[in-house]
Amino acid sequence: MTEPAAHGDAEPAAPAAGLTRRSLLRTGAAAGVGAALGASVAVAADGDGGAGVSSADVVAFHGAHQAGITTPQQDRLVFAAFDLISDERADLEALLKAWTQAAALLTEGRAVGTVGGNPLAPPADTGEAQGLRAGRLTLTFGLGPTLFERDGTDRLGLRDRRPAALRPLPALPGDELEAERSGGDLCVQACSDDPQVAFHAVRNLTRIARQYAQLRWTQVGFGRTASTSRTQATPRNLMGFKDGTANIVGEDARAMDEHVWVGDEGDWLAGGSYLVARRISMTIESWDRAPLADQEATIGRTKVTGAPIGSAGEFDEVDLTAKGADGQLRIPANSHVAVAHPSTNGGIRILRRGYSFTDGLSADLGQLDAGLFFLAYMRDPKHFIALQRHLGSKDALNEYIRHVGSAVFAVPAGVASEGGFIGERLFA
Amino acid sequence: MTEPAAHGDAEPAAPAAGLTRRSLLRTGAAAGVGAALGASVAVAADGDGGAGVSSADVVAFHGAHQAGITTPQQDRLVFAAFDLISDERADLEALLKAWTQAAALLTEGRAVGTVGGNPLAPPADTGEAQGLRAGRLTLTFGLGPTLFERDGTDRLGLRDRRPAALRPLPALPGDELEAERSGGDLCVQACSDDPQVAFHAVRNLTRIARQYAQLRWTQVGFGRTASTSRTQATPRNLMGFKDGTANIVGEDARAMDEHVWVGDEGDWLAGGSYLVARRISMTIESWDRAPLADQEATIGRTKVTGAPIGSAGEFDEVDLTAKGADGQLRIPANSHVAVAHPSTNGGIRILRRGYSFTDGLSADLGQLDAGLFFLAYMRDPKHFIALQRHLGSKDALNEYIRHVGSAVFAVPAGVASEGGFIGERLFA
Repeated sequence: MTEPAAHGDAEPAAPAAGLTRRSLLRTGAAAGVGAALGASVAVAADGDGGAGVSSADVVAFHGAHQAGITTPQQDRLVFAAFDLISDERADLEALLKAWTQAAALLTEGRAVGTVGGNPLAPPADTGEAQGLRAGRLTLTFGLGPTLFERDGTDRLGLRDRRPAALRPLPALPGDELEAERSGGDLCVQACSDDPQVAFHAVRNLTRIARQYAQLRWTQVGFGRTASTSRTQATPRNLMGFKDGTANIVGEDARAMDEHVWVGDEGDWLAGGSYLVARRISMTIESWDRAPLADQEATIGRTKVTGAPIGSAGEFDEVDLTAKGADGQLRIPANSHVAVAHPSTNGGIRILRRGYSFTDGLSADLGQLDAGLFFLAYMRDPKHFIALQRHLGSKDALNEYIRHVGSAVFAVPAGVASEGGFIGERLFA
Repeated sequence: MTEPAAHGDAEPAAPAAGLTRRSLLRTGAAAGVGAALGASVAVAADGDGGAGVSSADVVAFHGAHQAGITTPQQDRLVFAAFDLISDERADLEALLKAWTQAAALLTEGRAVGTVGGNPLAPPADTGEAQGLRAGRLTLTFGLGPTLFERDGTDRLGLRDRRPAALRPLPALPGDELEAERSGGDLCVQACSDDPQVAFHAVRNLTRIARQYAQLRWTQVGFGRTASTSRTQATPRNLMGFKDGTANIVGEDARAMDEHVWVGDEGDWLAGGSYLVARRISMTIESWDRAPLADQEATIGRTKVTGAPIGSAGEFDEVDLTAKGADGQLRIPANSHVAVAHPSTNGGIRILRRGYSFTDGLSADLGQLDAGLFFLAYMRDPKHFIALQRHLGSKDALNEYIRHVGSAVFAVPAGVASEGGFIGERLFA
């Protein structure tokens, strides 16, 4: 494999004005100027991705946890699941080292190697992100249960390191899963405000993995459906509703520790998390024919304001006991908000980080194949399992959705500093 | 069909700070404030699409030509082709009127009707763009040759109005077309800097069309591969190259008149154009294994700088006769730049407006299904046909691409002012 390296040979002269991604990063690498520039460098808003970069545009790769979980959710996603094509533990370790090294460069807005360079060799980086900003790229890596045991075999000699909680998800109510959209030995979640930056990252990580792993499935997401920071407004999903209002936010360290980060019980996974991915198709044409009152009763919120039914403000507390003048519950007991609420689920909370998707037409009806690519982080997948058992059997929303893809991954802690690699403690 | 109307009933209080899309537009509708605000309203660049709007964010719908052709190319695309399900000319006219009315609202950042409103009725607008900016949305409509004649029948009584140039494209070298990605009676090109805005527009136009037309195919594009204005930097395609350097730009009125706009010969189509759409899959894994020198010889440009081979700057003139010290042409005669150059094509130029796409994995090889969704506007489709006959037989790039989808549309002139509709002169 080509050694990742900052591109620098045969580079073009800097464009006319301002700091380019390349010149800034070249300078920054030598002088640490990135941090010094701080947030005072304005990011141009001209819709032309060729002109500037600021440290506000770079999300630090190194840290106690992997980025891309509490990071204020970026607008675009490219997600990829891989299968390891080797049964050598050393190959998995080599892949994770190579991915770590590449991810540190990519998230800084750098290439994974030369874009130009030796004319007789294929360029190490595919080049389509040259001139683009770092775009708040985060790359979050996960390890699937099949790495630890597949078809009953201990393929990599890692079975005794498998966290007890890391098992393929059981069959859940409403599952209509397609194998080609499910599972995987490894995953990469690439989030950025620029989809080309996310695509470039996944493409180059796929290329770096070539001798070790191959793509199993991918999913593009075009708009975030959750907020993971108090600084963000709640977005709308493709049903036109706000459905992430009560999400865990990264600023809530206590909730993160209680519900998202794996604790000391996790052995090598301590400080990590679990990621559940579900491709949820929406029958949006049916939804669009439902009267407003039915839509609101299904969700449990007012469509325009996002407020719980009967309340005025989006962030008003959800009161599942309030009754209207007719003596009926204002928020129906089978509404999505009621069935998903922590109070009806033994206090379970998860950090949602999903995206809206559209993938052309559905095969059957000539309707848009669109919906929610649900991503959620949690301390133990049993929390999702319990939630989905509840939702899958009682949620009024089930009339309009189908779960067609599913996967679960252990997400190791972050890499504290250069020299380490994702999942390092698994191999200790 | 529900009458499109600005949503205004049951709206939420304005968010904390700044002009919201809704409040601005409500004010603007009454007082024409949008224009008065001009470009002095900054568009926030916080990556959070909930906070502001400015007139720089709205592309005017009305004008001599349809927007979305010379408009500085937006970053994201949702394209949809439709088949008319009626054989009544009046239905086509009604659909074009309804689309025109909706497009005028959508491009202003408005809903196509109530988002809330009557609880007993489905909301007229699907709602997922509430709180988002207008996002420089343009909606460009086209009419396919099958509207005028299909299987030899004059299905709508419009055969004698068919422009002589509007015929299904002939078989072209290298065609590997798939019927489910080709053709269509009608098309909508939705371009925006926000993919959710573009998706919302296509979804709602599809919904409005329900009684008249159904979706045939769609294509999402995640990054522009051309520039249509001198104010824009040339982007890179998924081969990592700049390949739109010599594009026609909207500022070049003479080139537009000569190569893009249909003249008086066009009868009802005068002031319009023709759109050719081609889904071009790239075998990017093969490309990525080609040495840099081979890549550059294939394209005819230097990868890092974008300059023609042998030149220093991206915009240096392409000299197809210059030879190196070895006596060979610097820019190979079968390179993409040479084969596509106007000088080797009788002066033909087209306005390219394409997008990079990725749609999961290709069925055969577990590789990324990715490439270029080629869109180009021209005064006569024969220009594309001539170019593609030349390219398809001689272009070295053919080793790495496959044309799998194809369509051609007549794009009527713009709607000069309120009350008119797209294609109106066709019915006169």
